[in-house]
Amino acid sequence: MNIKEKELSHVNKEGQAAMVDVGEKKVTRRMASARAIVVLPQEVMSLLKDGELWGKKGPVIQTAIIAGTMGAKRTGELIPMCHPLGLESCSFDTEWKGNELTIQCTTKIESKTGVEMEALTGASVAALTIYDMCKALSHDIVIKEIKLLEKRGGKSDFKREA
Amino acid sequence: MNIKEKELSHVNKEGQAAMVDVGEKKVTRRMASARAIVVLPQEVMSLLKDGELWGKKGPVIQTAIIAGTMGAKRTGELIPMCHPLGLESCSFDTEWKGNELTIQCTTKIESKTGVEMEALTGASVAALTIYDMCKALSHDIVIKEIKLLEKRGGKSDFKREA
Amino acid sequence: MNIKEKELSHVNKEGQAAMVDVGEKKVTRRMASARAIVVLPQEVMSLLKDGELWGKKGPVIQTAIIAGTMGAKRTGELIPMCHPLGLESCSFDTEWKGNELTIQCTTKIESKTGVEMEALTGASVAALTIYDMCKALSHDIVIKEIKLLEKRGGKSDFKREA
Amino acid sequence: MNIKEKELSHVNKEGQAAMVDVGEKKVTRRMASARAIVVLPQEVMSLLKDGELWGKKGPVIQTAIIAGTMGAKRTGELIPMCHPLGLESCSFDTEWKGNELTIQCTTKIESKTGVEMEALTGASVAALTIYDMCKALSHDIVIKEIKLLEKRGGKSDFKREA
Amino acid sequence: MNIKEKELSHVNKEGQAAMVDVGEKKVTRRMASARAIVVLPQEVMSLLKDGELWGKKGPVIQTAIIAGTMGAKRTGELIPMCHPLGLESCSFDTEWKGNELTIQCTTKIESKTGVEMEALTGASVAALTIYDMCKALSHDIVIKEIKLLEKRGGKSDFKREA
Amino acid sequence: MNIKEKELSHVNKEGQAAMVDVGEKKVTRRMASARAIVVLPQEVMSLLKDGELWGKKGPVIQTAIIAGTMGAKRTGELIPMCHPLGLESCSFDTEWKGNELTIQCTTKIESKTGVEMEALTGASVAALTIYDMCKALSHDIVIKEIKLLEKRGGKSDFKREA
Repeated sequence: MNIKEKELSHVNKEGQAAMVDVGEKKVTRRMASARAIVVLPQEVMSLLKDGELWGKKGPVIQTAIIAGTMGAKRTGELIPMCHPLGLESCSFDTEWKGNELTIQCTTKIESKTGVEMEALTGASVAALTIYDMCKALSHDIVIKEIKLLEKRGGKSDFKREA
Repeated sequence: MNIKEKELSHVNKEGQAAMVDVGEKKVTRRMASARAIVVLPQEVMSLLKDGELWGKKGPVIQTAIIAGTMGAKRTGELIPMCHPLGLESCSFDTEWKGNELTIQCTTKIESKTGVEMEALTGASVAALTIYDMCKALSHDIVIKEIKLLEKRGGKSDFKREA
Repeated sequence: MNIKEKELSHVNKEGQAAMVDVGEKKVTRRMASARAIVVLPQEVMSLLKDGELWGKKGPVIQTAIIAGTMGAKRTGELIPMCHPLGLESCSFDTEWKGNELTIQCTTKIESKTGVEMEALTGASVAALTIYDMCKALSHDIVIKEIKLLEKRGGKSDFKREA
Repeated sequence: MNIKEKELSHVNKEGQAAMVDVGEKKVTRRMASARAIVVLPQEVMSLLKDGELWGKKGPVIQTAIIAGTMGAKRTGELIPMCHPLGLESCSFDTEWKGNELTIQCTTKIESKTGVEMEALTGASVAALTIYDMCKALSHDIVIKEIKLLEKRGGKSDFKREA
Repeated sequence: MNIKEKELSHVNKEGQAAMVDVGEKKVTRRMASARAIVVLPQEVMSLLKDGELWGKKGPVIQTAIIAGTMGAKRTGELIPMCHPLGLESCSFDTEWKGNELTIQCTTKIESKTGVEMEALTGASVAALTIYDMCKALSHDIVIKEIKLLEKRGGKSDFKREA
Repeated sequence: MNIKEKELSHVNKEGQAAMVDVGEKKVTRRMASARAIVVLPQEVMSLLKDGELWGKKGPVIQTAIIAGTMGAKRTGELIPMCHPLGLESCSFDTEWKGNELTIQCTTKIESKTGVEMEALTGASVAALTIYDMCKALSHDIVIKEIKLLEKRGGKSDFKREA
């Protein structure tokens, strides 16, 4: 990667925030995948034996996935320089590892521009919703990480080492 | 803290997501403060000597603060069980520590319910906007942490140890 | 009831749509309850023995309740002459009677104006979401009825005979 | 119709709500038409001789059509698993039959996915707006029916018998 | 007026955009009134003899008033540093003077902060809607002026000389 | 131009507001450019020597540009009969001439319908934001003009004489 030749695409020559003009870009199939990790305190985890509440079909994770899906669709409203897009797919995978919940959001589109901000926003809104659903139990819930895992279909692909 | 006596306030007895009824709660002055940390890769940081671009008055941080403010105002639309609120104050503090940008969002209201989700959402949207503004330079930008620092004015105050 | 003395509050003297001025009204506790009924065709019902899919904790009803809650919060954006309100409570009750699903939405607020449109909108969006979740199985899903059941706290209370 | 081979497209294998991936579907011309019927009590109808108020050009129906059009455009925000779409056409037909107002909403697009939820949402929001515009006269206004009349352009066409 | 003692309330000491903290302000009755003027070219005006189309009850002005009302309610979403408010009243007056249409929007609330941006936004969205409704006839439609006429209920009242 | 052969495209034969059906129109590259002029009173201008506050990189204009960009993206939500569009470019040029600030907004898309309302809405929201950012200094800030400068790519091009 040669950063020197790159520039901040969302800042124009006058030093102002500016939407990138994607008019000349090619329509391609694009996907992106992002991950958020939510850490719950041990004392909360000891209550979580009730699989119905915390499992994949339980209300906490179901609400988070629905919120994340709806949040991903509204990325263009939330992030100032993002293009409004018609997402074609938005899916979630969740997994508990001890007291950490991993939320992976994958977005897809056939478009002139990519969907990594959509994946990141979807994962973030889902993680914030986990916090909201559990905050009556503890305020020491931490979103430990939000990052891009993969993107394909744009100028250059990206895939994070496992 | 005695978690056992608590319950998930956003899940009802039938195991469904449910908004808490705050009708009987008292109107009090409430505040909350939350923090997000964005980590930029070293190779990007070496380009950041241009204070105008990356400083507190530069377009990257200005855009993030504006997006975070607007995002905090829309928390009730994004998080399914959050009450819609008329935020009375939303302010941001940012600080660079090496290649880490700390974003602190503080929200206030006089209301029956608190504003911690607003502070968390404001910090999150600001952090996502930093990512968006810089993503042309690298995809290895990580939101390392989003957590509540303090809340006051509700049933019990909370303040994280420094 | 004496309708003759009433008038269309949302139409002004010039025959134009107009928001009612509620500035002089008293802040009182208000509630409203509305019901939507969704009818599924018998052929679909025969598939519905899987309680996990269709029960109160299943994804179809959970998604409908979440959508209804979020829709109720946005009533002031959807209905042109509705006042924007900060809902304090929005809850749902659902019940299967044969192939009919009854969705009852109850909304509450302490405010100058009532929440019957919020209850009706919440029930409607939940019913539309049931349709959306099931439309792959049949297009002959009908929302049979949406009506107000009760309202309290305004100039005059209303309660529908059972 | 063979329901047995179908499945709930908006629920994934883990029993969670999930947006359908339409990436592989073909772009075709699609249309849908839906109908809502609003029933006004007789005592209200006796006031309705003023054609300017209640006719097709009057403020009640004009407001409902505008609200319905704007609501149809926002279907993807309201219904959790709906894809965001750029509607190309949304039109309304209204007709009084005694004390029943029939509202038909027709939507069109050239897209990978259909617009039946848009037609149903448009008709529903228009019907709710009729309620709102008239609720000062009576709370006994009932939305008697919301259903799909026709859809074309997807995997299989649908047209309800008259 | 002594401007020197004032400062930009929406810019903080670090030179960043910032929402004003209105937490300590008193709740008072507030109103504001703003005006937009739309100028139509003479050639369009010659077509406007059809009072049903262009009059106060016609579809052009009705649509503009509805859009303006809905726009005023969403001011806090559009203007970054505006507080989200629950408008209690929003009304419109329109008047043709030759080929100029004057649109006056008056907003009211009982709140800690004023509603002048709501009045200005309501008038602006109504004016833009007039443009949109008429743009098939001419692109030479000009919004000639948008300004505040009056505000009351805040620190200092304002009323423009006639 | 022959106005007589034209008609109001957003009003149907029944005299109701109606979205134009663009289904049969061709996808072409389209652009539009619109201008808003904000006039500040002389007494305010005398304070404006601080280039950091009022210059192109300062918080007032940066906030206006961000708000204008986000407003342009939401045109289809604000203007009732506008089609929802996926803007591909939205850029701003600003210039001070004495006490007048000229804001030019240029929008682009490859679509069946044009983006002049998006350019006008972007310029308007930016101008309203300038007002909001400066209103603590004076209420005598006037938006003097909002008009279309140019549009290309539709049935007929338009360019205003300089």
